Amino acid sequence: MISVLRLGHRSQRDARISTHCGLVARALGASEIIYSGEPDPKLVESVKAVVKNWGGPFKVSYEKSWRKVIAKYKRKGFSICHLSMYGLPIQTIIKKVRKRRNVLVVIGAEKVPGEVYKLADYNIAVTNQPHSEVAALAVLLHEYFGGKELIKTFKKSKLKIIPQARGKQVKSLQH
Amino acid sequence: MISVLRLGHRSQRDARISTHCGLVARALGASEIIYSGEPDPKLVESVKAVVKNWGGPFKVSYEKSWRKVIAKYKRKGFSICHLSMYGLPIQTIIKKVRKRRNVLVVIGAEKVPGEVYKLADYNIAVTNQPHSEVAALAVLLHEYFGGKELIKTFKKSKLKIIPQARGKQVKSLQH
Repeated sequence: MISVLRLGHRSQRDARISTHCGLVARALGASEIIYSGEPDPKLVESVKAVVKNWGGPFKVSYEKSWRKVIAKYKRKGFSICHLSMYGLPIQTIIKKVRKRRNVLVVIGAEKVPGEVYKLADYNIAVTNQPHSEVAALAVLLHEYFGGKELIKTFKKSKLKIIPQARGKQVKSLQH
Repeated sequence: MISVLRLGHRSQRDARISTHCGLVARALGASEIIYSGEPDPKLVESVKAVVKNWGGPFKVSYEKSWRKVIAKYKRKGFSICHLSMYGLPIQTIIKKVRKRRNVLVVIGAEKVPGEVYKLADYNIAVTNQPHSEVAALAVLLHEYFGGKELIKTFKKSKLKIIPQARGKQVKSLQH
């Protein structure tokens, strides 16, 4: 099980990036996202709306204190993986992470407190170049699940895409 | 060589997502990004500033007409790969794409004109779930380069990260 903790959300500036983090977490096999930083009910609702339409299970929540979240997941035996461009290359660490059944992936916004680097079991870099927490999360999930996440099916979805070489086909499902 | 074409940029709403697209393209092995949609010199400059500090080569440009860009790259022999949640699963198509030496990856913003689906050689879905063009681009590049992009080195960089298990180390380079 993978849980994602998004640090330091700012409701104005990060609205869309944080939404993308939640949608990527869900689409690529994580079980939940926990947002921290500024409370933003609209953000939580928008990701929940996608779960309602496109299926789950996927949990979306907000916690004021990221410290409490990390402490709680440590107690539950989760491995804490912090994605950071300053960390060790993912290609040298992913084998160890894959062995861990439960992982809390921590992704930051602009400034991540130094404490996070110390609390993490692994500080993992998806390249040591500046790019995007959305992309880093996607590559980590893809590497962790080894491609199996791409064929994941979702339960209780109202909408389902029928893949097409050209154009769009969406099926509405009844429950 | 991979070039990325970002469609339909809106300068207010997409500023950060479009920046992330450019940075991900650069960090994960593409050679350039071409922005289309609303002109946004600040966006182009912000990605260029990253190239200046962190190295290249990586080209950043703006073109008003995405149709002209696609036509031009088709003439140059590029395969046109449009990332879309409605397309065919990446895991069934990537082998064909890997055989193509030159690829133009097209990523849309909110609404992609139907014409793009017809012009594309491949409409490729990174899952048929709603998530993020930033994540879809990252997974496509990672799959195309097969992980080699993670060890890419950049030329003429002023800054370089020395990977750390804990904390941050950045080296300033002289040229």
